[in-house]
Amino acid sequence: MPAYPEFDPSACSVARTLDVLGDTWSILVLRDVFLGAHRFDQIQEHLGIARNVLAARLKRLVEHRVLEKRLYEEHPPRFEYHLTRKGLDLQPVLLGLMQWGDRYAADASGGPVVLEHRACGHPVRAVAMCEACHEAVSPRQTAAQARNQPR
Amino acid sequence: MPAYPEFDPSACSVARTLDVLGDTWSILVLRDVFLGAHRFDQIQEHLGIARNVLAARLKRLVEHRVLEKRLYEEHPPRFEYHLTRKGLDLQPVLLGLMQWGDRYAADASGGPVVLEHRACGHPVRAVAMCEACHEAVSPRQTAAQARNQPR
Repeated sequence: MPAYPEFDPSACSVARTLDVLGDTWSILVLRDVFLGAHRFDQIQEHLGIARNVLAARLKRLVEHRVLEKRLYEEHPPRFEYHLTRKGLDLQPVLLGLMQWGDRYAADASGGPVVLEHRACGHPVRAVAMCEACHEAVSPRQTAAQARNQPR
Repeated sequence: MPAYPEFDPSACSVARTLDVLGDTWSILVLRDVFLGAHRFDQIQEHLGIARNVLAARLKRLVEHRVLEKRLYEEHPPRFEYHLTRKGLDLQPVLLGLMQWGDRYAADASGGPVVLEHRACGHPVRAVAMCEACHEAVSPRQTAAQARNQPR
């Protein structure tokens, strides 16, 4: 068996992220905001989600500062939901989920949405990139280490 | 409001990926396999998950060909669980969840595990990379387009 970095599961960053995201609905709400849907009715109609369920998910994502509310109409007060820096940092997760579905779960079309680099118009994909080499790195080229442990 | 690529939510590749993954337990099982835990008892003990729940999650992941069983002992027959190509392609998702938790939900240590590039020993991170420019691209530098639609 390969070396396995023993660690306290309660400290796991994957588990803690999933705790914040909460459930599948939250991730689908974030997908819609990433794609440009910012208003309650737009997201609600698109997802076909119950209004009270959507309201609870949005409230939770705002409390965790993944989304922020912005006033876009004063009388009556109406709000849009936008990604914070913290929310934008979920981009690789959302893109990774999308491209995996495009590859393994989509119809022949290859999935309904493409994310493009504005500067050149080519597709963007989620990869693991080495901070030093700036190259995409496959799972076989990586090793998991316990942080601050001797190798 | 920015342009929003209208699409059928039932065709969404993010939603379809989440359907395959099923739930939080499945993602935590995959995390353990990515980190090098391949045997039932090892994963069960680490996650503190009920044996029947773990068995059901492993069965589902094998049925979806995300994991494969490999015989490592003949008498009695015992199996290890390994990632298939399809499973390995979830690397950016798992790494993205981990680094977000490291940044926003971890203790001062910055999270218990680091993923390193074997060739140089530097950390690996999940990014959105342009297929043509091979550069990491921020969310603001991307645009979501409906596939095969005029812009």
